[in-house]
Amino acid sequence: MIPALLRKFDAGREWGTVMKRNISVVGGDLRQLTVYEDFLKDKHTVNIFGFDKSDKGFIELELDKISESQIVILPMPVSTDRQNINAVFSSKPIKISDILELLSPAQLVFGGGFDMNFKSELKKRGIAYFDYLAREELAIKNAVPTVEGAISIAINETPITIDKSRCLVLGYGRIGKILADRLRSLGADVTVCARKYKDLAYANSFSYKATNFSNLKNILPYQDIVFNTVPSLILDYDALKVLGDDTLIIDLASRPGGVDFDAAKRLGTKVIWALSLPGKTAPVTSGKIIKDTIVNILNELEV
Amino acid sequence: MIPALLRKFDAGREWGTVMKRNISVVGGDLRQLTVYEDFLKDKHTVNIFGFDKSDKGFIELELDKISESQIVILPMPVSTDRQNINAVFSSKPIKISDILELLSPAQLVFGGGFDMNFKSELKKRGIAYFDYLAREELAIKNAVPTVEGAISIAINETPITIDKSRCLVLGYGRIGKILADRLRSLGADVTVCARKYKDLAYANSFSYKATNFSNLKNILPYQDIVFNTVPSLILDYDALKVLGDDTLIIDLASRPGGVDFDAAKRLGTKVIWALSLPGKTAPVTSGKIIKDTIVNILNELEV
Amino acid sequence: MIPALLRKFDAGREWGTVMKRNISVVGGDLRQLTVYEDFLKDKHTVNIFGFDKSDKGFIELELDKISESQIVILPMPVSTDRQNINAVFSSKPIKISDILELLSPAQLVFGGGFDMNFKSELKKRGIAYFDYLAREELAIKNAVPTVEGAISIAINETPITIDKSRCLVLGYGRIGKILADRLRSLGADVTVCARKYKDLAYANSFSYKATNFSNLKNILPYQDIVFNTVPSLILDYDALKVLGDDTLIIDLASRPGGVDFDAAKRLGTKVIWALSLPGKTAPVTSGKIIKDTIVNILNELEV
Amino acid sequence: MIPALLRKFDAGREWGTVMKRNISVVGGDLRQLTVYEDFLKDKHTVNIFGFDKSDKGFIELELDKISESQIVILPMPVSTDRQNINAVFSSKPIKISDILELLSPAQLVFGGGFDMNFKSELKKRGIAYFDYLAREELAIKNAVPTVEGAISIAINETPITIDKSRCLVLGYGRIGKILADRLRSLGADVTVCARKYKDLAYANSFSYKATNFSNLKNILPYQDIVFNTVPSLILDYDALKVLGDDTLIIDLASRPGGVDFDAAKRLGTKVIWALSLPGKTAPVTSGKIIKDTIVNILNELEV
Repeated sequence: MIPALLRKFDAGREWGTVMKRNISVVGGDLRQLTVYEDFLKDKHTVNIFGFDKSDKGFIELELDKISESQIVILPMPVSTDRQNINAVFSSKPIKISDILELLSPAQLVFGGGFDMNFKSELKKRGIAYFDYLAREELAIKNAVPTVEGAISIAINETPITIDKSRCLVLGYGRIGKILADRLRSLGADVTVCARKYKDLAYANSFSYKATNFSNLKNILPYQDIVFNTVPSLILDYDALKVLGDDTLIIDLASRPGGVDFDAAKRLGTKVIWALSLPGKTAPVTSGKIIKDTIVNILNELEV
Repeated sequence: MIPALLRKFDAGREWGTVMKRNISVVGGDLRQLTVYEDFLKDKHTVNIFGFDKSDKGFIELELDKISESQIVILPMPVSTDRQNINAVFSSKPIKISDILELLSPAQLVFGGGFDMNFKSELKKRGIAYFDYLAREELAIKNAVPTVEGAISIAINETPITIDKSRCLVLGYGRIGKILADRLRSLGADVTVCARKYKDLAYANSFSYKATNFSNLKNILPYQDIVFNTVPSLILDYDALKVLGDDTLIIDLASRPGGVDFDAAKRLGTKVIWALSLPGKTAPVTSGKIIKDTIVNILNELEV
Repeated sequence: MIPALLRKFDAGREWGTVMKRNISVVGGDLRQLTVYEDFLKDKHTVNIFGFDKSDKGFIELELDKISESQIVILPMPVSTDRQNINAVFSSKPIKISDILELLSPAQLVFGGGFDMNFKSELKKRGIAYFDYLAREELAIKNAVPTVEGAISIAINETPITIDKSRCLVLGYGRIGKILADRLRSLGADVTVCARKYKDLAYANSFSYKATNFSNLKNILPYQDIVFNTVPSLILDYDALKVLGDDTLIIDLASRPGGVDFDAAKRLGTKVIWALSLPGKTAPVTSGKIIKDTIVNILNELEV
Repeated sequence: MIPALLRKFDAGREWGTVMKRNISVVGGDLRQLTVYEDFLKDKHTVNIFGFDKSDKGFIELELDKISESQIVILPMPVSTDRQNINAVFSSKPIKISDILELLSPAQLVFGGGFDMNFKSELKKRGIAYFDYLAREELAIKNAVPTVEGAISIAINETPITIDKSRCLVLGYGRIGKILADRLRSLGADVTVCARKYKDLAYANSFSYKATNFSNLKNILPYQDIVFNTVPSLILDYDALKVLGDDTLIIDLASRPGGVDFDAAKRLGTKVIWALSLPGKTAPVTSGKIIKDTIVNILNELEV
């Protein structure tokens, strides 16, 4: 389904080489600002909303102008309270209900994680929306800033160097793959713990030590830093109990995380639960990743 | 289904920690010899057949002894003529029909690629067989010797160093992933060409240049070495035509390969089709990979 | 010259394999605590002074016991005020003059940077002293924690990832060599700026871009992060003027540093002068490096 | 001393940006051909002598034309018999005595290793000559093709992969530094053996195992491949005796090498003495390195 406002453009060609678009970028933080600047560099007409408090000197436009855009880009996350668009640089709230009033089926709406209610309102109005947060290439590319954030934590929160430290990476998905690569490059002795023979074989081919979870308790006592990337309870009381006294756990898994935090507290285990690292340690890079993902979606839509 | 000869052992425990087995290793080359030596190191009773011509001084045993084994390991490939077991160190042929007579449903048979006829004969006799060549972990681990073989070819067949050369890797599967990693480490300027956004995102996260196949003809003229890993015709006449004069193509794809070899000949393009590198450049490592894969299968069978 | 207290031990053998020593570790921070713990692990008799405030529960010993030791280890730096031993975990000052009274020519004294006065007092009393800070292997090994500290700063103080950033490393000495290696591994596009053809050739062989200082102003405008390791004024007003708006300078050079800090302030250039990183980001690793260096000196002395 | 033919050009500027030169390239192999082609690319007037047998279709020029050049470039090595210029692509000998007749003090002569006699003849005639083989940056850059050649030998001459093999690098000079880096990247478990604490500290900082030669016999039994870079007898009978049966020695040291070859023969140790790898495995890259070195010398001369 190609919205009316876009239909007039010749489809089937690489997006960005075709005619220029009118784009509204609404709310968000430095990432969203980067999305704005990057589309501007590509010579589109871009308006930005919700940045009057930033030091860039934007004068707040009337929200009405959103209705002129073919493409409306909402931030990541779209909202933190289900009432208003997440807009840290806005001096006044931007209501989701106001935005909905301004949208029409002629537009494409992008956002990073829509709640159920927002989605059903968009559907009801026949408006096409795309959750870039659900795209695999965004998740893969975001692994890089996540890994760099984790490395910085490891450097700052341990009294040893990563070089020559024994690092255990739990899980060999997007983050695990890149984390293991970077830790090895920094001189760590890396062990990857994964479930599938396939992942163990890859870890082995990239020269890490590789073992499965049944062997976890045997290797935990010898680790300096344990990085968890698996969003399920792996480091439970029994596992935490066998850890060395000075071992640091850095949990990179999204909710509910992979650590029994209560048990860790009781045992005095040092745990850092590091969430949302890309937006914190590299908002500009994260913004570029969002923008590139939106372009990929537009290319696939052939609009 | 656990064969009778194995059933007496306590299942459910890590294989290799349980009681020792009687194993027959039949035919093959240095890889199979390594399989033999590695199982011997694990303290199993192992007999080897078809190695009287090797310099190891094996005295050829009577084939009959195969029937005493719980596990029979055939080589990779199992046969090259569908009549005899592939056995380069044997002074006389080992007939498949003779082997079949000696096997019973009490045994497990392993091999690297059984032909249809062999399979149906095994099925008919109720004998469990396992094709280790079909296992993904073997394919992943074999990527390492394949990549090292390809690197050696690149060093020897070009008048330049890999360091600072522009290398294009077509495909980002098992071989592509490891090849790109090693080439970058050797100082090459690596571009990965892949189809899926997901693979391009990974290639990007590992700091290679990444592009899709629609862009192939634009980048081909600037490459010093092109490594193909995709088993379909990618480097056709039109692609070969735009290559630089001194570019070397190393085709690592299995039949039918990824190059129009006739066109390459006409155009004077230098192409090396490098097949079966693991057995050639690292037979001992390849043998260990086969052995580890067989152990994985035995662990899964819980025999 | 081998002090009397040590002469009785059989010389000429690898230190640490011989009879055990009595060692006093005096003052300092976590690094010195690690020196203490590491010598203890080697089964020497070790006393520690100046750590009653640490959470390790040390009861402060009488300073007199220092005179029983064959080896006395002072911290890094030995003193910050030329009156007292640097002792952050001590509840009361440890006077240099008191220490001098307790030392005798029968002992070996180690420290990280003695001031002129301390040195002349030691000489006057015929006491052998060794400045481990002057040892090249300590400086080389300390480059690793310095580099990790710098990487952490780069991750935290820029809104981009190191991956794909353009990093300029000024100088290719101890820190420059390791910094360039690690930045490249993290995916950066690394340029090394050095004076000697020899260093440029090495940088080139390790696949960095390499250029000399005469070319500096041409490349400065394109850098995301500039790491300076040269302790002389390289980034003067004219150089700072051509930097990009968002470029971060991380100055790792010891006093006087390599940046015109006043000019940077006027121009609004973001500069972080990061001194003494090893003690800050990796005190335990730094302590081990100090201990290993002391062992090297003892081995050379053949005591 | 700037020769008359060059004096007219404005000195003090980056060479290659000034007026164009007349250059004669005489004799040699593919490396020298690359020197020719690279100076041609820089828009100089370049004549080539001694390549009538190459497939490039050069018509042999009269040697007399050499006297018109400001710069005369002789090959590496200059001569193999002290009578004639080394010229593998020449159908007839190019006598050194004939070349000497054509040279004058107005010219600069470059070559890779002049013999005593040639040097004294040049001096006698007042002709400035430069041995690019004596330049450190050439030796450093040549380490890369040497290392790639050594890697190719290791891949082809052992039945195992470099990945996961135990590699010992004897010496940590130009070749040792780059060899250790590349072997580690290929997944090897690398130990560096060096004499100086400084080199051991560097090896340690780059995450190799590091040990000194007094420990050599303890580690030799556990190595898969031993790479020697030290040109003195290190692997003598006693050392060879403790090597594992399957260990391969690759000797990269120039004459007299580092291995007791007779003892190796008696003990059945596999040794490959790999000399002159750059010219063999990467003549074009080696030629570029020679050309760049000549340009460095010209820049230093400010001609």
